[in-house]
Amino acid sequence: MMHILEQDAALTAGTKPWQPYLAAALGFRNHWYPACYSQELAEGQARGEQLLGERILLKRIDGEVYAVQDRCLHRGVAFSVRPECHSKHTISCWYHGFTYDLRDGSLVAVITDPESALVGKLQLRTYPVREAKGLVFVFVGDGPPPELRLDLQPGFLDSDLAIHPNGERQLVRSNWRLAAENGFDAAHIYIHRHSPLIVEQQRPLPLATILSSREGMVVAEEGQPKGVVKGSGARTPVWEVEIEGVKVRSRFLPREGVRRTSPDTSMWLPCGLKVDPFPTEGIIQFEWYVPVDEHSHTYFVTWGKRVASDREAAAFSREIEDHWKDLVVDKFNADDVVAREAMERFYAEEDGWRRERLYRPDLIITEWRKLASAHNRGIQRRAAV
Amino acid sequence: MMHILEQDAALTAGTKPWQPYLAAALGFRNHWYPACYSQELAEGQARGEQLLGERILLKRIDGEVYAVQDRCLHRGVAFSVRPECHSKHTISCWYHGFTYDLRDGSLVAVITDPESALVGKLQLRTYPVREAKGLVFVFVGDGPPPELRLDLQPGFLDSDLAIHPNGERQLVRSNWRLAAENGFDAAHIYIHRHSPLIVEQQRPLPLATILSSREGMVVAEEGQPKGVVKGSGARTPVWEVEIEGVKVRSRFLPREGVRRTSPDTSMWLPCGLKVDPFPTEGIIQFEWYVPVDEHSHTYFVTWGKRVASDREAAAFSREIEDHWKDLVVDKFNADDVVAREAMERFYAEEDGWRRERLYRPDLIITEWRKLASAHNRGIQRRAAV
Amino acid sequence: MMHILEQDAALTAGTKPWQPYLAAALGFRNHWYPACYSQELAEGQARGEQLLGERILLKRIDGEVYAVQDRCLHRGVAFSVRPECHSKHTISCWYHGFTYDLRDGSLVAVITDPESALVGKLQLRTYPVREAKGLVFVFVGDGPPPELRLDLQPGFLDSDLAIHPNGERQLVRSNWRLAAENGFDAAHIYIHRHSPLIVEQQRPLPLATILSSREGMVVAEEGQPKGVVKGSGARTPVWEVEIEGVKVRSRFLPREGVRRTSPDTSMWLPCGLKVDPFPTEGIIQFEWYVPVDEHSHTYFVTWGKRVASDREAAAFSREIEDHWKDLVVDKFNADDVVAREAMERFYAEEDGWRRERLYRPDLIITEWRKLASAHNRGIQRRAAV
Repeated sequence: MMHILEQDAALTAGTKPWQPYLAAALGFRNHWYPACYSQELAEGQARGEQLLGERILLKRIDGEVYAVQDRCLHRGVAFSVRPECHSKHTISCWYHGFTYDLRDGSLVAVITDPESALVGKLQLRTYPVREAKGLVFVFVGDGPPPELRLDLQPGFLDSDLAIHPNGERQLVRSNWRLAAENGFDAAHIYIHRHSPLIVEQQRPLPLATILSSREGMVVAEEGQPKGVVKGSGARTPVWEVEIEGVKVRSRFLPREGVRRTSPDTSMWLPCGLKVDPFPTEGIIQFEWYVPVDEHSHTYFVTWGKRVASDREAAAFSREIEDHWKDLVVDKFNADDVVAREAMERFYAEEDGWRRERLYRPDLIITEWRKLASAHNRGIQRRAAV
Repeated sequence: MMHILEQDAALTAGTKPWQPYLAAALGFRNHWYPACYSQELAEGQARGEQLLGERILLKRIDGEVYAVQDRCLHRGVAFSVRPECHSKHTISCWYHGFTYDLRDGSLVAVITDPESALVGKLQLRTYPVREAKGLVFVFVGDGPPPELRLDLQPGFLDSDLAIHPNGERQLVRSNWRLAAENGFDAAHIYIHRHSPLIVEQQRPLPLATILSSREGMVVAEEGQPKGVVKGSGARTPVWEVEIEGVKVRSRFLPREGVRRTSPDTSMWLPCGLKVDPFPTEGIIQFEWYVPVDEHSHTYFVTWGKRVASDREAAAFSREIEDHWKDLVVDKFNADDVVAREAMERFYAEEDGWRRERLYRPDLIITEWRKLASAHNRGIQRRAAV
Repeated sequence: MMHILEQDAALTAGTKPWQPYLAAALGFRNHWYPACYSQELAEGQARGEQLLGERILLKRIDGEVYAVQDRCLHRGVAFSVRPECHSKHTISCWYHGFTYDLRDGSLVAVITDPESALVGKLQLRTYPVREAKGLVFVFVGDGPPPELRLDLQPGFLDSDLAIHPNGERQLVRSNWRLAAENGFDAAHIYIHRHSPLIVEQQRPLPLATILSSREGMVVAEEGQPKGVVKGSGARTPVWEVEIEGVKVRSRFLPREGVRRTSPDTSMWLPCGLKVDPFPTEGIIQFEWYVPVDEHSHTYFVTWGKRVASDREAAAFSREIEDHWKDLVVDKFNADDVVAREAMERFYAEEDGWRRERLYRPDLIITEWRKLASAHNRGIQRRAAV
């Protein structure tokens, strides 16, 4: 590996093969995003979420979730400040009683002016919603949405895959792209080497895994989710490095004769990660980095397992709650959150997107940037908000 | 009411009949504003307030209140950080002892340079002050001020009207215009329908009152305060609305044979509201929404009652303190504060002034905007600060 | 003193004889600045500091302190978030293990990609460091640095001067220039007249000392530190002033026959103050106002005394800790911090640099501004960060 990588050449030239990605501070438009967990929205309940800078109101009606803009057309207040539902299919603005049908966003009544000429003439923006596997997905875009499966990590919708309904979510103070690149980073496992999760498992985690070939990395078939996977190229684990005569090595080295499955990490448009298996054999970790605004994202983490019965699914959920959840979220992913927030100043204020100096393991990241640049369905702009 | 309102036409055309109002984020210049309650300023005491972006220092001398800019001409610190008065008529800057006469703002001494050539040559901006009915009013503007009564709610200065000296004030995080439009909004009573004040009184409060005619609404006689009142046009109370077959109705309906006085709400330049009667028969509520900066205002609320003696005035004050004050401020007006702050994002960041969709009851608000645009004495600009 | 001062003339003309100083919101480039106290950096320890907008990492190796930029070239995170040193001369980025030699900033290893082509090709910006008298000084600039002594208060490096190793430092929310002008202000002692330090000492502190002549004020010899001192011109102490018939006088007047040494205050490029003696005979106070960003600075305060032995030096340090430190820092300098922060709004938001009205005692400040404008080695710009 004596040659300079392609991205270094691009840096020198001052151009980038991922310009659209650089413009997507607010995320990609015309995609499906998780908005909340299903269990956060009981029958008849309404709640507000912000995705890609847009304020969105969700309400569950007869089991089905509907979404409209969470900003009354009249004076712009958010319905979710004081959600008020007088009838099954409506949301009424708590301020003047503008009442909209959640199904089509139409203004169906104005409590403070029952004969208003505006009734039937105004319409809230509506958002297509699909609920699947304990998550509520919203399509932030225009026109008819594509199939949900096209914007999901492959396998997520498989009927034998149980998804834990009580996943985690938190607001993280970094741009969503820094989160995606952190989660998908083939070399970032280095920050996790002291994690109690690794120590408990005595897991032989290499310092890094080097993927030096693009072979099979890009998954972009027509009619399928678009993503980047580790691929079929050679993977070289790094177990030990010498610095100034000092050896830095992985805490637990692979044991002879014990074959370990290295987890397969992949990143999918618009912002979903899959790590299979993780945190242990048979469990798949799913993450999403949903843009809230230019400087923060909602970090979703949940887990899946292939099961043969509801009883197995329930046992799996108990296992997550009792054993894995805190360990993964507080003792492992928390390091990733630190890393994302630590990058924010450089990228937001110090010209980081131009100044960064990528290296060989970032090949997987630049492949992701190029894939995202080529296959996204639009750039979200402030004007759309 | 089948036609679209005038303001909707204006929206379509992209112009507004209230452009000056849209420019008045910092308020209207050359008007009188309440700066504090009289009781907040004891004899000899000095305090700082910010109005329309300007930092103002008030001091009471021999009973009279004087106002100068609260920023030393030398290095710009606020006197009010550490108010320092060595003599009756002066304020000395706590930093270098620049000492100004409050009566004309002139630099009369410099403690740290007694022979300074600047003495007698520099002058702080002074502000005309009038004290009336327990409030200190300051004229923020240039040239000789008009009579105070021209910028007050009519009747406020009446000799038989006792004003409660211990009114409320708080900083609210919204532009002052959103506050004015909230306070004066004929339809916003909807948000108060669950207020403990309404419940206690079992008051038959309609969901809204519709004023569909401009008749008598605008009060703009030469030599008189300029304001908008409900007017003499038809008022239609809304008691019940049906949404999707569900009836939404006022909690207490009017009882046959019991005539209720509907309070008269009116809004006056530059930023004063009058609600008569409120919270009960015989009491008038006065409010002001004084711009602090583009995104906050000081919210003043006090009450008046016609009395025949000092004893009656004292009894009135006790009644306000013992019964009405907390009920009105914490259990009723607090809803208005929520509403104003909920509008701020839309108007400040999301092009709300252009995007808003007004409706029939907002006629009174657009009349206010037009009146304010036509009769204000100037737009406050940052450059004046 | 009937004529208007030079600076007033300049104000009238709208030009200033200190334009470069006005551009130096981030400080002067190509100078030495204190970064921390020596005792804050133990052998092998690394810590981050921000100076002039630049993030800097310091590490002590075999007693010597090295400094490099505190931002990994790879993805821009600060090393100091989680300082990680695997070997004596290196800092490794905690995120991906980019490992740099502190001595020249070169990338010597990448833990997560041992064969990286970038090794030996990338280099962190390094900063010259000198440690002296218990302080770590960093040169923020380009090219070979001048001698440290040229950027220090004269005498600071004298071999018989013991400097207290445990000085104070704090972040103050004002531009560094407001701090320099406060510390060096001949008239600002007025704010200290009620200080417990003054009261305890029953010190005859004048209200101000007027320096009305430039004679000997400017010290700008070739090959020497550049600064402004009180000079040899007449000094007129002000003990009493009359305001509107009220006498304002110093709390303790000078006693007949008792000769008091007036402390000599001087200000040196780039940002160092010297007060000799202070807080008492035989002790010299040193201060620095190191720019952090445009709106804050690190305020360093420490003390020196001429000693003949280590035992005397140790006794001096105990005296500072036991008696003077809290008294000076909490009961005296705290007033200066209030003053600096009180000026910030005027200078940062209200055009203070143009609007200020200086007076006779500010002669010493304008001499400082002119000296700094003439003798600085460069203006720090955001682009350099």
